[in-house]
Amino acid sequence: MIPSPLALTMGDPAGVGGDITLKAWLKRDVCPPFFVIDDIERLTALAARLNLNIPIHAIDSPAQAMDIFTTALPILHQPLAVPSIPGKPDAANARATLAAIERAVALVQSGQAAAVVTNPISKDVLYGAGFKFPGHTEFLAHLAGGGAQPVMMLACEKLRVVLATVHVSLKDAIAQLSTDGICTIARITHAALKRDFAIADPVLAVAGLNPHAGEGGAMGREEIDIIAPAIRHLQNEGINAQGPYPPDTLFTSKALPTYDAALCMYHDQGLIPLKTLDFERGVNATLGLPFVRTSPDHGTAFDIAGTGKASELSLIAALNMAAQMAAARG
Amino acid sequence: MIPSPLALTMGDPAGVGGDITLKAWLKRDVCPPFFVIDDIERLTALAARLNLNIPIHAIDSPAQAMDIFTTALPILHQPLAVPSIPGKPDAANARATLAAIERAVALVQSGQAAAVVTNPISKDVLYGAGFKFPGHTEFLAHLAGGGAQPVMMLACEKLRVVLATVHVSLKDAIAQLSTDGICTIARITHAALKRDFAIADPVLAVAGLNPHAGEGGAMGREEIDIIAPAIRHLQNEGINAQGPYPPDTLFTSKALPTYDAALCMYHDQGLIPLKTLDFERGVNATLGLPFVRTSPDHGTAFDIAGTGKASELSLIAALNMAAQMAAARG
Repeated sequence: MIPSPLALTMGDPAGVGGDITLKAWLKRDVCPPFFVIDDIERLTALAARLNLNIPIHAIDSPAQAMDIFTTALPILHQPLAVPSIPGKPDAANARATLAAIERAVALVQSGQAAAVVTNPISKDVLYGAGFKFPGHTEFLAHLAGGGAQPVMMLACEKLRVVLATVHVSLKDAIAQLSTDGICTIARITHAALKRDFAIADPVLAVAGLNPHAGEGGAMGREEIDIIAPAIRHLQNEGINAQGPYPPDTLFTSKALPTYDAALCMYHDQGLIPLKTLDFERGVNATLGLPFVRTSPDHGTAFDIAGTGKASELSLIAALNMAAQMAAARG
Repeated sequence: MIPSPLALTMGDPAGVGGDITLKAWLKRDVCPPFFVIDDIERLTALAARLNLNIPIHAIDSPAQAMDIFTTALPILHQPLAVPSIPGKPDAANARATLAAIERAVALVQSGQAAAVVTNPISKDVLYGAGFKFPGHTEFLAHLAGGGAQPVMMLACEKLRVVLATVHVSLKDAIAQLSTDGICTIARITHAALKRDFAIADPVLAVAGLNPHAGEGGAMGREEIDIIAPAIRHLQNEGINAQGPYPPDTLFTSKALPTYDAALCMYHDQGLIPLKTLDFERGVNATLGLPFVRTSPDHGTAFDIAGTGKASELSLIAALNMAAQMAAARG
């Protein structure tokens, strides 16, 4: 197991982060030890609102969390600027949201925390407060000291996917596809599967772009011109990349056990099968950083914040994957 | 139940059609009554090759199949030109392959068969013999007398999908998307869900094209410019079309029970979730024809023809769906 606890950030205090943190701690017998960086008053009030009888215990340093985790939820106090109301995000608290992330990164970099697990943030709220990054992942890469190219991996028990293109229109995704881009993602993924998942010789299944992977050029040439050359490059480097495979049969129960990660060409090619297979337990892991970081694969869900309706299963899966990755890294 | 048997075509005699037909008959207690249009000698030889003790009984008219189906596999003899070797397709038998389809359609049109179920054909083999249609579906539409616009529906127990674009590159699929095209597919699907599936007021879930359904135009404008206008048109006609929905959460276990069919924008958007959910029992149904037609959702699989390895589950699902659709049509 991990020698130090996981650092869990508060996320947007008006979102479901508090709800799922409290509910995850109630299932602490299936969670690795963690502490949350959050405002102790707001989390205590939230527990009362949800009728959850949870002892919340302030700590001074992460090491204390290892001892008290079984009897209380350890919290490293991060004061909010204004009281938080569930479902009503307030830009005045953006600084505290970001500070929790910065502190988590500092603690993992100094070896006091085993990994960073982040609760959902709202980019719109942060942009209103001057945040300059496209998202959580890029902010973490910046805090990691630059130079790191982060790769988002989405994973459930049966499937890991990485994406050659992410949050762009489908038309732009096709235009952005490149042999170099695919190779870069594949190399980072390959290294992470070895280091963070202890897979000695990872198999990467590379999806085609077009129906039936283009059927020899009859339905699109990207497989021939872009994807197959990338696979040859990778194979020449000793990376076990295979494909390009017809996308529609890459995620069947027969195909899934034959590879360690699927490299998908666009957002929905990877996220449709992942969410179809396991919507509630999806985890987002950031590969290529100098530290381990995971998060639940859902947003702030302002509409149900403070109601207790949000499922804690994705956060629990994220905590466990972070602990496994940190243990593999050693 | 259906008053007349289903007509099952031979498909390419060098493919797995014979294998799965024989194996489906062995599970006849979970199949509706059917007869196969095939060469009696080749099917008898195949049964011997597979060590299957199956009485194969020639019939003169489909009505006889209803009586003998429980004790023998009824066959309407369609002679091959040359003996068929599993895995070795021969253009000399293309005429017999097509004749089986033509006879099945004639029998369903004259009311002697309840529906047409087709075994897989090889377009390449048929093209070599002068076949002029893009595929099975278009040939059936032609035999139906023209005017019919066929719509391919793929279905498993949990999900039905129809496609706004099919066998074209992803780039061309985006270029071909149109409000009119989406409306046409939706109207045919809506009518078929009422007539063939006895759903009084079918709900059509229309997928977006882009990640997160474009997020208000931030990641592509097709939702705003093409898809949402189609949904408004359809709603004005009294069709319960909803969307455009983010594609990645449209096929979760929570979402699936909320609609009767998903209208997808491109091949893999529909086929990835379908095959991920249930690879072995997928059924291809052709909507918009004057008769019911289904087929297993796989190809000729020449590489395993004659080995008995091919799964009969998709064919059994296709037979049962055809019987249900024919019964609903009355």
